[in-house]
Amino acid sequence: MAQQERAFRTRRTILTAAAEVFDELGYEAATMSEILGRSGVTKGALYFHFPSKEQLAKEVLQENVQVVPAVPPQRLKLQEAVDRGLLLAYLMVRDPVLRGGVRLALEQAGHGKVDRSVPFLAWSQESRRMFEQAKLAGELQPHIDPGELADVFVGAFAGVQLMSQALTGRADLDERVAALYRVLMAGVAVPSVLVQLDVAVDRGARVNEAVEQQRHGKGQSPPERTARLVEHG
Amino acid sequence: MAQQERAFRTRRTILTAAAEVFDELGYEAATMSEILGRSGVTKGALYFHFPSKEQLAKEVLQENVQVVPAVPPQRLKLQEAVDRGLLLAYLMVRDPVLRGGVRLALEQAGHGKVDRSVPFLAWSQESRRMFEQAKLAGELQPHIDPGELADVFVGAFAGVQLMSQALTGRADLDERVAALYRVLMAGVAVPSVLVQLDVAVDRGARVNEAVEQQRHGKGQSPPERTARLVEHG
Repeated sequence: MAQQERAFRTRRTILTAAAEVFDELGYEAATMSEILGRSGVTKGALYFHFPSKEQLAKEVLQENVQVVPAVPPQRLKLQEAVDRGLLLAYLMVRDPVLRGGVRLALEQAGHGKVDRSVPFLAWSQESRRMFEQAKLAGELQPHIDPGELADVFVGAFAGVQLMSQALTGRADLDERVAALYRVLMAGVAVPSVLVQLDVAVDRGARVNEAVEQQRHGKGQSPPERTARLVEHG
Repeated sequence: MAQQERAFRTRRTILTAAAEVFDELGYEAATMSEILGRSGVTKGALYFHFPSKEQLAKEVLQENVQVVPAVPPQRLKLQEAVDRGLLLAYLMVRDPVLRGGVRLALEQAGHGKVDRSVPFLAWSQESRRMFEQAKLAGELQPHIDPGELADVFVGAFAGVQLMSQALTGRADLDERVAALYRVLMAGVAVPSVLVQLDVAVDRGARVNEAVEQQRHGKGQSPPERTARLVEHG
């Protein structure tokens, strides 16, 4: 393995361990020694790649959006927007790296060390682009502002998943997110588009399956799934 | 002042100080000594009323819903539901006690000491009752489930306020919550009701004014406002 590749893998191992620790303990309670123990790398390697907990948190936050893979293109742009959110809900339950970033973004920092706006803005900008395309395609009601809708879309998702986490440990996350999207879409889609949207509870699982098949079709073997998910989104 | 009343006031002073500290530092970083210093009561009094930080957090969480006063009755039940949320947004920016409870509810506890489900459930049950009445009055579209809508309503609010807090320190909270409600209501209200709903950005301020006038009409003087707000909701 080339030195560069080894360094990349070590970095990845540390980031994954850090995200897990942030997910479980939050930023304040997380420690470098806990992350060190979890990652299994040497202390020298940890501090070579990431001089501080703050630096680790920044990286985890920045990667957060890239962790969720692109969804397969759909005839309706609103379906793609819904698919992206339902896939995120599906993967969050299963991927501690994703949860770590989300927890960092949603926690009110005690001392404002970490800029929590990054994932909000990234998700919002991505959603905005989708809604702008949906509007151009005539899928949205004429009075809907794509930017405002994107912020509602992202903010509401964040809260619904927090509520699911507080009430059921995210056991009902797919149901709650589907319920959210059914209401949101009914408020913004034109009727002829609304009736075509698939916002079923199992839609996230089906989108994930389609993403997997896309990947395998490109010649990757199943065991690489998680690594690819994390590395390239 | 009777002994009982004095004890009640001391308790109230401590709870207010604790909520402020939870708002600023979060549960993990908050300490009894910080709360003691902030409250100005004696150490003996603090521990007599609240033996632990955990106990304080539980009380702050439990009071969270009662802190927001009832909104004036409206002809449309959906208007009352919207008013309640917009008033909450308006008061949150101004009331650290309210923010302290919200922060506790939204923080993922590191060790699960505090039951964060209390405010979510209380808000959700209250919203559900309003939506059930709205449904009976024919204000909601027939396929809408009041309980599911209540959960969406509460969860989405929580996330939108977190996003506002992360991006602008809640400077745009009123706009974001109004935008959320416009989309949500468009998705669930029957058209004839939807056009009558007031979901303007300044609605929260106007509802607050109406609540104040109701109070003063009952013979209370303005300086008591904050205390009453906290004591009796």
